[in-house]
Amino acid sequence: MTGAIPFDVAPWSLGFTGLDLDAPQLAHLESVFALSNGHIGWRANFDEGDPHEVLGTYLNGVFEDHPMPYAEDGYGYPDTGQSVVNVQNGQVLRLLVGDEPLDLRRGTVVHHEQRLDFRAGTLRRDLEWTSPAGDTVRVTSVRLVSLTHRSIAAVHYEVEALGDGVHVSVQSEVVANEDMPEVHPDQRVNDQLDEPFEGLGHFSLGSAATLVHRTLKSGISIAVAMDNVVTGTCATPPSIETETSRDLARTTVSVELKAGESLDITKYVGHEFSSTLSPEALRDRAEGAVDDARRDGWEQVLADQRSNLDEFWACADVEIDGSPRLQQATRFALFHVYQSAARLEARSVPGKGLTGAGYLGHTFWDFESYVLPFLSATVPAAAEQALRWRHSTLEYARERAKLLKLEGAAFAWRTIDGRESSGYWPASTAAFHVNADIAAAMVHHIRTTGDERFEREVAVDVLVETARLWCSLGRWDPDGGLHFDGVTGPDEYSALVDDNTYTNLMARLNLRAAISVAERHHAEAGALGVDDDEIRRWMHAADAIVVPFDERRGVHAHAAGSTDLAQWDFAGTSASQYPLQEHFPYFHLYRKQVIKQADLVLALYFAHEAFTFEDKKRAFEYSEALTVRDSSLSASVQSILAAEVGHLQLAADYLAEAATLDLDDLRDNTSQGLHMASLAGIWTAVTAGLGGLRESDRGLRFAPRLPDQLTRIRFGMLVQGRRLHVEIRPEATVYQLSAGEPLLIRHFDEELELRAGDPVSASTPPLTNPGTAPAQPKHRAPRPFAEAMREE
Amino acid sequence: MTGAIPFDVAPWSLGFTGLDLDAPQLAHLESVFALSNGHIGWRANFDEGDPHEVLGTYLNGVFEDHPMPYAEDGYGYPDTGQSVVNVQNGQVLRLLVGDEPLDLRRGTVVHHEQRLDFRAGTLRRDLEWTSPAGDTVRVTSVRLVSLTHRSIAAVHYEVEALGDGVHVSVQSEVVANEDMPEVHPDQRVNDQLDEPFEGLGHFSLGSAATLVHRTLKSGISIAVAMDNVVTGTCATPPSIETETSRDLARTTVSVELKAGESLDITKYVGHEFSSTLSPEALRDRAEGAVDDARRDGWEQVLADQRSNLDEFWACADVEIDGSPRLQQATRFALFHVYQSAARLEARSVPGKGLTGAGYLGHTFWDFESYVLPFLSATVPAAAEQALRWRHSTLEYARERAKLLKLEGAAFAWRTIDGRESSGYWPASTAAFHVNADIAAAMVHHIRTTGDERFEREVAVDVLVETARLWCSLGRWDPDGGLHFDGVTGPDEYSALVDDNTYTNLMARLNLRAAISVAERHHAEAGALGVDDDEIRRWMHAADAIVVPFDERRGVHAHAAGSTDLAQWDFAGTSASQYPLQEHFPYFHLYRKQVIKQADLVLALYFAHEAFTFEDKKRAFEYSEALTVRDSSLSASVQSILAAEVGHLQLAADYLAEAATLDLDDLRDNTSQGLHMASLAGIWTAVTAGLGGLRESDRGLRFAPRLPDQLTRIRFGMLVQGRRLHVEIRPEATVYQLSAGEPLLIRHFDEELELRAGDPVSASTPPLTNPGTAPAQPKHRAPRPFAEAMREE
Repeated sequence: MTGAIPFDVAPWSLGFTGLDLDAPQLAHLESVFALSNGHIGWRANFDEGDPHEVLGTYLNGVFEDHPMPYAEDGYGYPDTGQSVVNVQNGQVLRLLVGDEPLDLRRGTVVHHEQRLDFRAGTLRRDLEWTSPAGDTVRVTSVRLVSLTHRSIAAVHYEVEALGDGVHVSVQSEVVANEDMPEVHPDQRVNDQLDEPFEGLGHFSLGSAATLVHRTLKSGISIAVAMDNVVTGTCATPPSIETETSRDLARTTVSVELKAGESLDITKYVGHEFSSTLSPEALRDRAEGAVDDARRDGWEQVLADQRSNLDEFWACADVEIDGSPRLQQATRFALFHVYQSAARLEARSVPGKGLTGAGYLGHTFWDFESYVLPFLSATVPAAAEQALRWRHSTLEYARERAKLLKLEGAAFAWRTIDGRESSGYWPASTAAFHVNADIAAAMVHHIRTTGDERFEREVAVDVLVETARLWCSLGRWDPDGGLHFDGVTGPDEYSALVDDNTYTNLMARLNLRAAISVAERHHAEAGALGVDDDEIRRWMHAADAIVVPFDERRGVHAHAAGSTDLAQWDFAGTSASQYPLQEHFPYFHLYRKQVIKQADLVLALYFAHEAFTFEDKKRAFEYSEALTVRDSSLSASVQSILAAEVGHLQLAADYLAEAATLDLDDLRDNTSQGLHMASLAGIWTAVTAGLGGLRESDRGLRFAPRLPDQLTRIRFGMLVQGRRLHVEIRPEATVYQLSAGEPLLIRHFDEELELRAGDPVSASTPPLTNPGTAPAQPKHRAPRPFAEAMREE
Repeated sequence: MTGAIPFDVAPWSLGFTGLDLDAPQLAHLESVFALSNGHIGWRANFDEGDPHEVLGTYLNGVFEDHPMPYAEDGYGYPDTGQSVVNVQNGQVLRLLVGDEPLDLRRGTVVHHEQRLDFRAGTLRRDLEWTSPAGDTVRVTSVRLVSLTHRSIAAVHYEVEALGDGVHVSVQSEVVANEDMPEVHPDQRVNDQLDEPFEGLGHFSLGSAATLVHRTLKSGISIAVAMDNVVTGTCATPPSIETETSRDLARTTVSVELKAGESLDITKYVGHEFSSTLSPEALRDRAEGAVDDARRDGWEQVLADQRSNLDEFWACADVEIDGSPRLQQATRFALFHVYQSAARLEARSVPGKGLTGAGYLGHTFWDFESYVLPFLSATVPAAAEQALRWRHSTLEYARERAKLLKLEGAAFAWRTIDGRESSGYWPASTAAFHVNADIAAAMVHHIRTTGDERFEREVAVDVLVETARLWCSLGRWDPDGGLHFDGVTGPDEYSALVDDNTYTNLMARLNLRAAISVAERHHAEAGALGVDDDEIRRWMHAADAIVVPFDERRGVHAHAAGSTDLAQWDFAGTSASQYPLQEHFPYFHLYRKQVIKQADLVLALYFAHEAFTFEDKKRAFEYSEALTVRDSSLSASVQSILAAEVGHLQLAADYLAEAATLDLDDLRDNTSQGLHMASLAGIWTAVTAGLGGLRESDRGLRFAPRLPDQLTRIRFGMLVQGRRLHVEIRPEATVYQLSAGEPLLIRHFDEELELRAGDPVSASTPPLTNPGTAPAQPKHRAPRPFAEAMREE
């Protein structure tokens, strides 16, 4: 981790008082304090634009095409890549005090504080600054990306003079073709992404202005409009002037302030894009959105934001007693995951949300596997939008399958618009599990929401086409077993293995889900050409899938033969050689027993019914000794399994790691954006780990246990429209249904019927001694919970 | 194949009368008629420069650096690539007849003939052309790349007027920064290679001129000098003018010819390059070489060329009775292989020699495995230079091993100067067999030449360091077996397999060779830190290497578990879907049983002592059914094994395929250069296939048999300085030693002592019925010998 930032600890906000303008810390703060609503993303660049590390204003779905560079070409390699680009930046409010521009590197910073408020949905900044010429001002800015006005971000910016006769001038801007961070390994791709836009028009009227641009290759038009409402307590009326050029719209507000007088600007910024709409239509929409918000006014916009979040937290909040820092980190995580998806419209969520340009803004399988379960259970409308987006890419997936000489659909491993954009096939094309992961997310969504229309309109198509994919991928052995050879599982330190256990089990679930929907939705399945014969073939295939088990060692293998490979030389690997992929070639990683991230362990969770408790215990212990957690997708799942097999302290340690990953920048890359899957994984580590939640066709089962440090956890979730709250204390758990039909659940092996408004308490059975917790590779044990959760 | 070109059939030359200016044919001819001496390569571009398809003037070792493009980066990926570039082109002699430039696309071509003479070492061109204005000239050009003057290429150019009062003007040029063919899959790399040179100087004096250039990135300086000796039968003395600029040196010779008069120009072109010498020194050398050649004069240069080739053919010629076309094709092949290497100085031979820019001018393992055996046995001095070049890259190889966290040395998979330049690691870095191939080439060279100094100065280092590599690559199993996991063998339709049989057996030979040289050269090995303990470890490792055998099917496997993979759907693959790699993803190729090229079958040859005859028969038959020969490295080896197991007709068919690969452009890519390994493989298919030659520590063994079509084959080879000739007739074989100590050989199971000047005849034992020849995959049977060898 970089120099850790001493955030304060508070239950409903994250604040940092002080200033750290060094490169990694500043970029880290820009990510951590980022705001989004799933459509717009604003990194927490300072209002005044500079200093900055990574400027970031993103719109979900705006990207530029670029050629994919290959040293050696191959059949089926995607020839066009996609990279997120910075759209026109409406964050900027530059301040001149006298003729000194506000720049935190100059003058004297008397006070500086940033605070992200999880209930208000705002980033507030308090600054007191004395210019080199000796004028002191107090600046208070509050910004939000609106959860209710989808196109709108807004800033309330107040400058107060602390001395007499200060001339202040604020330049409120929209800026296009700003510097992008260099995110691609190929410098020439970065060069091409350097100025991705052509200008289509720039317009101004009074205190309002609009820039319309279009990406040069991908042809996406974007309109960003602003209006600036100027008020304040100053006696003299401020002068207001607006000018525009191709890449800059600037409203300049100037006034002479007496001591104690202030200038207030409320800036509304509207963001619209489209590949098909005319620039005029886009401009109208962006300006219309700004007008709407301005009419509502700042206080109303703030109130709407608050009430939207109140509703979110009413279901999604996780209350944690015993560790204020874990409480804060968990709400921080859920806030970010929520805002990454809140206003999705048939889009997915990139790996970093809209908080940075890491992974080029692509979405991956872990959105479906790690983020969607939380969304389906708390914000199902957002989950549905993301799943409908996947469905909307079905034609690309069918084409990709055809190109790969397979049947059905092969969804993109990494993409923005649905077209495959991966450049290293052993870790992408071969990772067919993404298709089963998408299928599983749909199954989970249907189970959680009971949304039959979604099942009919979306899930049937996807489940049928992915089932077909698996059938065409399989190899039948002479003994009637079905194998998937040469595939890559979730673990990125192995590739092109035969019978990856996770893949095989997820394929089986995929096939069974296809059978189930095809039988329930005969007409829709029939329209896809599914007949009884095909369903029988799926049944036969699902039953025949082989799961590798090492008889000699009595443990499930990650893949056929994997337990026979050489073990990684952990003793000879120094702490500084992690992450291993930066210090060792894939060649070694692939041919040795070393696990980057939960893979078999992920199977133990997602395909939990395929394993006995003893299987899980053995496989978890075997994996622990080999797992180095070089991926942020690991700790949360390891936490879940550690809890299941009774190692509650280890579960707490892993939970703490997931909870501090971005706050403490454990991977030195939070600068590029937050790790959405890991953030969402905190929720799963709490609910499925400590809460022991598992779902199956038999319904929900809980097995709640708390580690010593925690005295109470309470979380909520939607179960087919009903809100269920689970409150865990060491000795007992209380289940409470808010409304609707009664619900049968299991608490450990006990069946409980829950009725609305009628809390049921169930006691925690004694824990069978799990034995000594397994050890991790040298240097790779997680920080102890107490250390990670220490309040500075 | 493209439209086959109707070459005439002649024993000692290859001629084509006529003209085919279509793209693939013209480029094909440019390759087939290319001249080289291992230092200089001139493609057979027309003297007048245009029309052309692929301009090519190469110097072995002149390349440009470029960044390696990756869509996704990885540890250990080379960041700099190397591509051969066209150096200053001294081929050009443009002719103006009246004021009409000679252009074969205009006017009337009365006669056009090109002929490559294998004994003269020249390319002769006869042209009679009538200009659009009606003037007819006869042009005779004879060019050579000198085998005796290493820096020199020369052209004798004669223009005869067939009508009265024709004004002719010849522009004899050296041209720099000409168009390169676009050889890289990344267009931006091609763009960068477009003008690779900066000019360092241009000079002229009388009829001579010199251009000095330097590559922009790799910093290699090149001087190309020319002089033009003007004679002829014309009454008027020609005017001669020379002018130069940065990228052009031009001597213009003009004269008025009467009917029957001719203008003769002999152009000498000197080529020098260096990364360290000053431009002045290079200029001096290039001009000095030109002066030398000019003093010798054209007739002497021609005579030297002839006598050099006479010496080559005295040992290397293969006489074949029964198929004039096979006779011609074989000599064509040996001529090209010889000229690709004749004047090497510590350089290797690129995959395409110096006949084209295919494979970016890189050298690969197949040079050591396919080309070197021929060179060691016929031109050992050239072989030694190539092996010394490999040795000179040892420091790069040690660095590469270190980077890969291995011990010893890991030689480059593809390179020009020794640095790894491969961009797809599963088929390069993982293909560690290249190291054993280099070791084997050294062992073969020592066996063949008995050169103890070479062994001491070169082989000890390489064998010791490669043995160390293997030791660090191996995995010991609990039963004491040694495995090489996750490696790639020669077959490019599989990758990252465990225990590739070829790799394992070649590693064993490598270890044993290291033991042997370390014991013989104690001081040199000791200087490398080799002690008795290390030698014992090598012995132990060599003995412990596991060779996969499929007990159920009773056949050696290509790799562990390979025989269990799904078989390729050959029945469902159409003829137009070959080569498979252009129509299917690696994903499928790797996970299915389909063989691109000899791999296990190559092991049956190179590691022949590890297999019984029955093993070989079974493995060959198993492989045949899966081998699609999408690589030119396959047919010759399949021919060898087919002959060994008694399928002489199949052996002949494969020999015919190898022999016509470039002549008939069977792979549609001879335009990019000739396939040197396949050309050399013809020699091995004759000697090791039909001749049954195998070498081992027990000496040479022959087992000669002819297929029905051939009535006699005679070939020669050097055996530790002695020249051995083998003349095979159906009923018996005559062995004849020219000089030196007696030699013990085996003829089948009979031991023969050969004494100089004392031919020994041994009869051919009856052939045990080999049964039905194995079938190949649908569409992939070789053309029958008779069809391939039909004289058009």
